[in-house]
Amino acid sequence: MIKINEHYLKLSASYLFSEIGKRIGAFQERNPDREIIRLGIGDVTRALPKACIAAFRKAVEEMADESTFRGYGPDYGYSFLREKIASEDFQSRGADIAADEIFVSDGAKSDTANIQEIFATDITVAIPDPVYPVYLDTNVMAGRTGENKDGRYEGIVYLDCTRENHFIPELPKARVDLIYLCFPNNPTGATITRNELKKWVDFARENKAIIVYDAAYEAYIRDDVIPRSIYEIEGAAEVAIESRSFSKTAGFTGTRCAYTVVPKTCMAYDRSGRKHPLHALWSRRHATKFNGVSYPVQRAAEAIYSREGGDEVRALTNYYMHNAALIRQAMTALGFDCTGGENSPYIWVDCRMDSWAFFELLLHKAGVVCTPGAGFGRCGQGFIRISAFNSFENVAKAMSQIEDALKA
Amino acid sequence: MIKINEHYLKLSASYLFSEIGKRIGAFQERNPDREIIRLGIGDVTRALPKACIAAFRKAVEEMADESTFRGYGPDYGYSFLREKIASEDFQSRGADIAADEIFVSDGAKSDTANIQEIFATDITVAIPDPVYPVYLDTNVMAGRTGENKDGRYEGIVYLDCTRENHFIPELPKARVDLIYLCFPNNPTGATITRNELKKWVDFARENKAIIVYDAAYEAYIRDDVIPRSIYEIEGAAEVAIESRSFSKTAGFTGTRCAYTVVPKTCMAYDRSGRKHPLHALWSRRHATKFNGVSYPVQRAAEAIYSREGGDEVRALTNYYMHNAALIRQAMTALGFDCTGGENSPYIWVDCRMDSWAFFELLLHKAGVVCTPGAGFGRCGQGFIRISAFNSFENVAKAMSQIEDALKA
Repeated sequence: MIKINEHYLKLSASYLFSEIGKRIGAFQERNPDREIIRLGIGDVTRALPKACIAAFRKAVEEMADESTFRGYGPDYGYSFLREKIASEDFQSRGADIAADEIFVSDGAKSDTANIQEIFATDITVAIPDPVYPVYLDTNVMAGRTGENKDGRYEGIVYLDCTRENHFIPELPKARVDLIYLCFPNNPTGATITRNELKKWVDFARENKAIIVYDAAYEAYIRDDVIPRSIYEIEGAAEVAIESRSFSKTAGFTGTRCAYTVVPKTCMAYDRSGRKHPLHALWSRRHATKFNGVSYPVQRAAEAIYSREGGDEVRALTNYYMHNAALIRQAMTALGFDCTGGENSPYIWVDCRMDSWAFFELLLHKAGVVCTPGAGFGRCGQGFIRISAFNSFENVAKAMSQIEDALKA
Repeated sequence: MIKINEHYLKLSASYLFSEIGKRIGAFQERNPDREIIRLGIGDVTRALPKACIAAFRKAVEEMADESTFRGYGPDYGYSFLREKIASEDFQSRGADIAADEIFVSDGAKSDTANIQEIFATDITVAIPDPVYPVYLDTNVMAGRTGENKDGRYEGIVYLDCTRENHFIPELPKARVDLIYLCFPNNPTGATITRNELKKWVDFARENKAIIVYDAAYEAYIRDDVIPRSIYEIEGAAEVAIESRSFSKTAGFTGTRCAYTVVPKTCMAYDRSGRKHPLHALWSRRHATKFNGVSYPVQRAAEAIYSREGGDEVRALTNYYMHNAALIRQAMTALGFDCTGGENSPYIWVDCRMDSWAFFELLLHKAGVVCTPGAGFGRCGQGFIRISAFNSFENVAKAMSQIEDALKA
């Protein structure tokens, strides 16, 4: 008799964004004429940068001609892309990361979901709360947790991110082995200083722990004192894996390209205490369980590192940051405490009531979709996330409709 | 202390194709002037069909314009593609598969690698020998095996495919829960009749087992009595998951698109014997651990189902089948027993000596790269796989060089 992986049964019934989708669907059915502005899911809306389109086009033409056609690409991504990433995203900022430590993939979601597979099942995992649900769900699926009791899984060390600690978690008091951090943060929009991040790197080194650092929103950092990569911190290459995405950087959510850095100096241990480089384990996993990114897509991603591409990415992220500033300003003017929106495309709003109730209120009264903070964990209760990913016109309209709705 | 997944340490030191790559590299270093013809790895060489290129181009242009730009796509693939797949690949052949049972992915390798995650760790897995290494390696990584002793992992039920059984394995005598089958087969090129396949479906139904059916080479079937899908067999939708790929069908190895079918009637069990639909489990896995296929790539794949695309796919696969016929004929004329090459792009050659020795002989004496059968499992020893994926000119040249080398 074939048995299922019963850990799946522990997962909450529905993934946050499916639940939001269902509620929007129900609203639209009852109100077919109401227009809705979506500031919920963090999906970009602007066209791909022209430099990316030009490279994309050219690569499609290469696939049309036998003399330039490309079949299977290198397992870990094309050198042309890995080398640009290493030099532009890391070496140029003093982080000593080599091209062969870069693994090109289809998304930071896939990578942060899959990375846990190279670790033992009985390690202790520390996960922030609130959090992007994928870190947690994939550890549940892998059997690293007990049941979900009152919204929290047994066996997980939750790192509370609250107004009191400015949404930067404190170091765990218990022993932990695998730590997920995400800065600029999804959902809170909080950023971390070099000093704060150094505490985590030092903690990991002292405790032989590994940090999975999700920097998918790095392109939104405007303040130069904020680290863009964990590898700007001394010693991080021994204890940290970093994931980044072109999704939010260059509008690749529908085009799909991202990467993960596993430095060769990054080690974990077997039961006898012997060191093993994670680079070898992740290489094996990547080559065995993944097929690589489409060649034309890798060419489109490479174009981000051209002068023209870089300028366009900056203009693109500036556009969304302009939206973010407006959201933050409007919600603050309405008397809500806000985090984020200054070095991140998300604004985390203390809504002073149940998250889902406020979600429903904004949907019904203002026709605006946000994301209920409670969907990201217990500490997200009482907050909502508003995303800056939409046209400026829509964001302005949404803010004005929220104003009208709340003042009414 | 962070511990590694020690099951990875059980894996053989290197993936077959990496080992081949190393040996070719060593040969080229010693013989920089020798030309090499690669009939080893099953990678296509011909340009994408024009219909796919046209659709690909158009979709790239859509990404260049905000009014037609696409962000995140639907988790399981766009309806335009899922509906074509369901109607053209299944319903048109009498197999009752619906669009919402299709999961679009980046490759059949990823899907056949990842599918085991939705099952319990303590199930018994049956895997053919010889076999595409991914089925085995991913079960090793997941901890379903013991150590590798003399080339076989403890705990796996191996299904021997030998000259005696015409490379169609016999039904297992022991109880098994998860069965991997691949037809047309990689590496042997063997195909299975409806009657033979029905025995497996019946066995799975009687034993509450699940079959993972890899039909990546379906487009090479020329004989109408051979089933193209396992769902042509009565009852298969209760016990079978089928994976297919556009890689070998339409030259998508570098473009990346594939799909897996999980019928809603396909069930597995929890420890108390309660039924659970695998569709729900795979939906959850796919949405949580995968980011979806690039929108322009899905449009390019859709074009395969147009009249023009279909004609081009037929011409493309005919081209390779012409190569396959030549290889089979040439090797047979040299006195070797051959399987495959008639409804598959692979020719499995009984080389009457050690696989790696014959590989080295062909490399050094004929400048031709094949794949040593022993790399696919113990029963592959004494065989090599020759792939039809190259230009006709190269294949003809390779066969003539092999003739010269072996007659010398």
